[in-house]
Amino acid sequence: MTAKKLTDLFYDTLKDIYFAERQILKSLPKMAKAAKSEELRSAFLKHRDETEVHVERLQQVFEMLGKRAQTKTCEAIKGILEEGDEIAEEYAGSEALDAGLVAGGQAVEHYEMSRYGALKTWAAQLGLKDAGSLLDQTLQEEKKTDALLSKLAEKTNVRAAA
Amino acid sequence: MTAKKLTDLFYDTLKDIYFAERQILKSLPKMAKAAKSEELRSAFLKHRDETEVHVERLQQVFEMLGKRAQTKTCEAIKGILEEGDEIAEEYAGSEALDAGLVAGGQAVEHYEMSRYGALKTWAAQLGLKDAGSLLDQTLQEEKKTDALLSKLAEKTNVRAAA
Repeated sequence: MTAKKLTDLFYDTLKDIYFAERQILKSLPKMAKAAKSEELRSAFLKHRDETEVHVERLQQVFEMLGKRAQTKTCEAIKGILEEGDEIAEEYAGSEALDAGLVAGGQAVEHYEMSRYGALKTWAAQLGLKDAGSLLDQTLQEEKKTDALLSKLAEKTNVRAAA
Repeated sequence: MTAKKLTDLFYDTLKDIYFAERQILKSLPKMAKAAKSEELRSAFLKHRDETEVHVERLQQVFEMLGKRAQTKTCEAIKGILEEGDEIAEEYAGSEALDAGLVAGGQAVEHYEMSRYGALKTWAAQLGLKDAGSLLDQTLQEEKKTDALLSKLAEKTNVRAAA
């Protein structure tokens, strides 16, 4: 047990986010389908395409480590997506639906930001420069998506509160 | 169902984060006890005290709405804390333990940031100025804690990678 090192933590967390990204990839088309506004729908679909690239980047990082791309069940993302599904169901037909979907999307982005942030820092410490660069590219895209959702939240909510 | 409005979403999300904060309050002393470095231990303990204030602020917001402070099971935080416990167990005695604890703490902070960010935006839309101000105070403290953990991560990891 005590023999576990930072490299193991890096690998374990990589498996966690690999599981998460694959779940998110399945979830985004459902979120897009549920969205009422065209803008939110297309934001979710665009991020679905980006997520496909995020999955590929993780596969590249596994390859750089000389490891097989493997998932490890991530209870956090399961819980976050479960809550999102619940809101989509409970607010179906409601004027506040899109506000709820945006908030669910932002919870997903924030989880990813925390994971990619940690992985990027560890990659630097472990001297994994190329892996760190790939992880940082994804981190920046998650941040951008979060910022876009914040903007949509402002618009969405004006409508819902009216 | 379709009668649900933004004010319902606000209230539902308040119950979600109220549940989450109370779980976090129980979890932080355990994280502090597990931490190897004195700096990380004291960061967790300081944030435990802040969390107590966050719980009180939420109770004030419920009161402002004329509602009873109520929890709603938050599967997201349950998943996030479960993963943190798992890392603490699997990395007990490992040189990478603190790096794992910091990452777990940052996943918690990011979840909270997404929730308080949404609640703050909605409070503004709903004209709940005082509630918005309380929620924003907590949001800023979560952001500060996340930034502090990022700094500790750099130090922690240098040691773990060495």
